[in-house]
Amino acid sequence: MKIQIRKESLVNALNIAMKAVSMKTTMPILECFLLTADENGLRITANDTELAIETSVDKEGCVIAEPGQSAVEARLFFEIIRKISNDMNSDVSILSDGSIMEIRCENSNFKIQERDPEQFPAIPEVSREKYVSISQFTLKEMIRDTIFSILPNDSNKMMTGELFEVKEGKLRVVSLDGHRISIRNTGLRDDYSPVSVIIPGKTLNEITKILTGEAEKDVNIFFSRNYCMFTFENTKLVTRLIDGEYFKIDAMLSYDYDTKVKVNKSDFIECIERSTVLIRETDKKPIVFHITENSIEMKMNSVIGTMKDELPVVCEGKELMIGFNPYFLLDALKVIDDEEVSLFMTNPKAPCFIRDEDGKYIYLILPVNFNPNMY
Amino acid sequence: MKIQIRKESLVNALNIAMKAVSMKTTMPILECFLLTADENGLRITANDTELAIETSVDKEGCVIAEPGQSAVEARLFFEIIRKISNDMNSDVSILSDGSIMEIRCENSNFKIQERDPEQFPAIPEVSREKYVSISQFTLKEMIRDTIFSILPNDSNKMMTGELFEVKEGKLRVVSLDGHRISIRNTGLRDDYSPVSVIIPGKTLNEITKILTGEAEKDVNIFFSRNYCMFTFENTKLVTRLIDGEYFKIDAMLSYDYDTKVKVNKSDFIECIERSTVLIRETDKKPIVFHITENSIEMKMNSVIGTMKDELPVVCEGKELMIGFNPYFLLDALKVIDDEEVSLFMTNPKAPCFIRDEDGKYIYLILPVNFNPNMY
Repeated sequence: MKIQIRKESLVNALNIAMKAVSMKTTMPILECFLLTADENGLRITANDTELAIETSVDKEGCVIAEPGQSAVEARLFFEIIRKISNDMNSDVSILSDGSIMEIRCENSNFKIQERDPEQFPAIPEVSREKYVSISQFTLKEMIRDTIFSILPNDSNKMMTGELFEVKEGKLRVVSLDGHRISIRNTGLRDDYSPVSVIIPGKTLNEITKILTGEAEKDVNIFFSRNYCMFTFENTKLVTRLIDGEYFKIDAMLSYDYDTKVKVNKSDFIECIERSTVLIRETDKKPIVFHITENSIEMKMNSVIGTMKDELPVVCEGKELMIGFNPYFLLDALKVIDDEEVSLFMTNPKAPCFIRDEDGKYIYLILPVNFNPNMY
Repeated sequence: MKIQIRKESLVNALNIAMKAVSMKTTMPILECFLLTADENGLRITANDTELAIETSVDKEGCVIAEPGQSAVEARLFFEIIRKISNDMNSDVSILSDGSIMEIRCENSNFKIQERDPEQFPAIPEVSREKYVSISQFTLKEMIRDTIFSILPNDSNKMMTGELFEVKEGKLRVVSLDGHRISIRNTGLRDDYSPVSVIIPGKTLNEITKILTGEAEKDVNIFFSRNYCMFTFENTKLVTRLIDGEYFKIDAMLSYDYDTKVKVNKSDFIECIERSTVLIRETDKKPIVFHITENSIEMKMNSVIGTMKDELPVVCEGKELMIGFNPYFLLDALKVIDDEEVSLFMTNPKAPCFIRDEDGKYIYLILPVNFNPNMY
């Protein structure tokens, strides 16, 4: 293999592929990039067996003097390319003889060992039958707005991922961790076949880092039985799916309420954040709301001190005292774009719903027990 | 104690005092701020027994309705003040009854426990006899330009601090770690009594964070036998000194050389940084320079690969092959402001000096052994 490529194009491609490089593994080949130079240009592949990324620099962006394939330690190769010159426009030459790769730029010259490209695991084929197409912006937002309520290391695999559900012209993304449920809905431009899959949280986190998030650029998501594939620009990302049936979400939702509160989101966040000052790792106290006609009184009592605050609100229905984990409220409130949010509650034991009128978002949060005599 | 104070003034003062709050201690009082309200305003003190800081908001900046003293857990108090309102101009009321402190701002109200202010350790008195006065800018720079070659956790206490030496109208700051020496000199505006003290590195690190670094604002440094005191603006910082006699630096310096190299600093840094890509924690290889009439050829050979680079230079004297720990070169080069730097060397076993003609800086770096047949 013998190629010449502009440093900037290569750095951008490596940055993307790096997200699928395994960081701790007993299989050294999973710490590698596979470089493939052919008549189409240069393809860079990384694959940690859960998540695979293939991204390319097309033939306009590089000169393929001699096609071929090579596997090299990913982090080392990336660091060399990043540091080999200060000039992003400089040309980097890469020569591989199958055992030693030589990397040249201006006066600098690196030689590193190659690994056997044959050992590199193949990327699973994903059928292009079932799919949806949405804007990068929407996908990035939907993940960001729900990902906080997964449990990344839980033994219940369902909770480590997110439900992606295509039904009746809508995409619904759901995550839950046993104390709360986060739901985002978006309308689709076409009528797609129904799909219901669970995508690992790790994949979703990595994809938000790669997507530029532009509203005019689309992502296609293809679904097969065990894998799903995201394609956008020069990049293809294939991830294993989490096997099994997701929780029956609809049975947990309810639209009845006895108390509805409409509150300014920024002020609400500010008050709740203030209360967290009194929380210690070893002493997790709830924030207790006393909701009356025109205000929410907020209290936090912990071993280190007490807080009291008050916020004017518009309240419909019954007065209520209810306690929450303040961080669960903050997670949901911080990803809502609306200036005003509505909370729907029934009693101190029943879930609270934060939702909008159009059904774009629903955040269910379970309340926390507290001793009313202490507040 | 009963005071009213603008949030911004209090936050700024707490930010400074926070640097002397003990983070891990068996004496809870060392985790506190001591607040003292009297006819002069509000004074905030922190003291971890090695380092003490006292900073104040004068009576123009606060209303002292009732003078008094109170001790409160520093991090908690600081967090409450930071979060109690989003408006930096809002007024915060602080009421202390000796056991509970109440902090109020707009609708928010916090109550936290106080500690016994009597237990708070007194700040040592430092005589104002011997001192120097230099600009904040110069002090901050001199510390930054030398602090990297202390050994913060060494059993040899001398190496955990820096020598501050006043002699013949000059201040000299020195640090060393057994492999290198960093020296900065600056001329003083007045003729001060000679002084030679060793100031703990921790203190110097904290003081660089507090100093605004303005060239027009001065710092006074007062020296006594066991302590030294820095005073600037509304702040007083007292630190214990390291006891003992510092290394005989002058005996280690030499102005003879057989090879002198003049090199563009940025290019030199870039090449050396490039070589560090091949260094692993377990395989610390030197960068080897082959210095000839018009160039430095640089090589790095490690288990993971090899690098070769070349830089044009102006060389006087003998050709030389010499190896260095690349990080030691980088530390020194990065704090030198000159565009061109000169290296003075004798042989592959003798120290290399990076110094300017005015004697403002001297960096001594010991070379590293290498097998010349490998390069």
